[in-house]
Amino acid sequence: MQSARTTLRRKPGRGAHDAATVHAILDEALVCHLGFAVDGQPYVIPTIHARREDRLYVHGAIANRMLRVLAGGAPCCLTVTLVDGIVLARSAFHHSVNYRSVVVLGRAEEVVSAPEKEEALAAIVEKTMRGRNALCRPPSEAELRAVKVLRLPLDEASAKLRTGPPIDDEPDYALPHWAGVIPLRTTAGEPEPDPRLAPGAPFPHDLGRDAGGTTGTAPPTR
Amino acid sequence: MQSARTTLRRKPGRGAHDAATVHAILDEALVCHLGFAVDGQPYVIPTIHARREDRLYVHGAIANRMLRVLAGGAPCCLTVTLVDGIVLARSAFHHSVNYRSVVVLGRAEEVVSAPEKEEALAAIVEKTMRGRNALCRPPSEAELRAVKVLRLPLDEASAKLRTGPPIDDEPDYALPHWAGVIPLRTTAGEPEPDPRLAPGAPFPHDLGRDAGGTTGTAPPTR
Repeated sequence: MQSARTTLRRKPGRGAHDAATVHAILDEALVCHLGFAVDGQPYVIPTIHARREDRLYVHGAIANRMLRVLAGGAPCCLTVTLVDGIVLARSAFHHSVNYRSVVVLGRAEEVVSAPEKEEALAAIVEKTMRGRNALCRPPSEAELRAVKVLRLPLDEASAKLRTGPPIDDEPDYALPHWAGVIPLRTTAGEPEPDPRLAPGAPFPHDLGRDAGGTTGTAPPTR
Repeated sequence: MQSARTTLRRKPGRGAHDAATVHAILDEALVCHLGFAVDGQPYVIPTIHARREDRLYVHGAIANRMLRVLAGGAPCCLTVTLVDGIVLARSAFHHSVNYRSVVVLGRAEEVVSAPEKEEALAAIVEKTMRGRNALCRPPSEAELRAVKVLRLPLDEASAKLRTGPPIDDEPDYALPHWAGVIPLRTTAGEPEPDPRLAPGAPFPHDLGRDAGGTTGTAPPTR
């Protein structure tokens, strides 16, 4: 998936182009940031994405400007970033953030095949909560018509990662300052039932396993 | 801070342009996604930002391509997104994400004033951990020369938010499916001391209060 445009110019040791790494980061991230330009002005808009094999899908209302621009064949950039930790160094200069990010360059196409569109939308619902499609009402014909789905191939994609402890200048290791990593993780809290839900309706999902975008293995206790 | 370009076209009820809302979201987010174009190809790159009054600062190595393009006056878009929850509706169609995002449009300028540059870099360190500048070695002259700092004014900025429970179609409220919100939050885990730190060196920060990008009030217990 490597190209001249997705080859890291700086700190190449932080780069990765293998599909497994790229896919894992895309799959773990709940939202992406999609970049496109209108009249030379870049816009970066958050949205939810889902991957199936080597294709990404995004969706939105048919009137959505971003999707209209992208479906017209404009070049775009889809980026996801997982922030894994705060890196505190002995020197201000070497403070950093541990992260895993993927940058995808390309042009999107509108999905016109009905089965592919339905599969993409199901994948996006599944992204919020694994197993969710079996536990909600599927889209009606009218709802399917109201949504536009775009496909972005993973032809040009690269990952960039920083992991591990701070890297200080050798003399600074003698300084007394605390240094290390503060791991960050996203966890799911106690589900908040819809006010119109029947009281006591059981929560049907396994949050620690299935909630999208979380890295915790269990919800925090109160 | 409102302009024609930052006025929401769709779901205007989700928009906000007041400075307090925009500032709070920018301040809470540890990283932003910065969009710019090179030869018509948009790029979206994650980086850390810091706000001082109505100015945003980003930084990087002087050889950094993004900073070189932006310092040249190219239009850019800086976006931050806080993901607050997963919205599970009774219908697949009304699944959503609760979030708070800010989109800033404009052109950046390189900071050439030494005091402003040092203050911006200190603000960026402070963003990782409040109080951190007092607990690490400040930048040397050589380090300051190795870094480029850009300033982006908050002249054109808008916030967009989704909060609250799912909004289902009226007939769907009779369906038996669980619906509601799964709150997501980012918490700081146990600090991981640098392997070269003196054993037992005390951790000098209050994680629940000062760790950048976290919303938890206390680190998770193991």
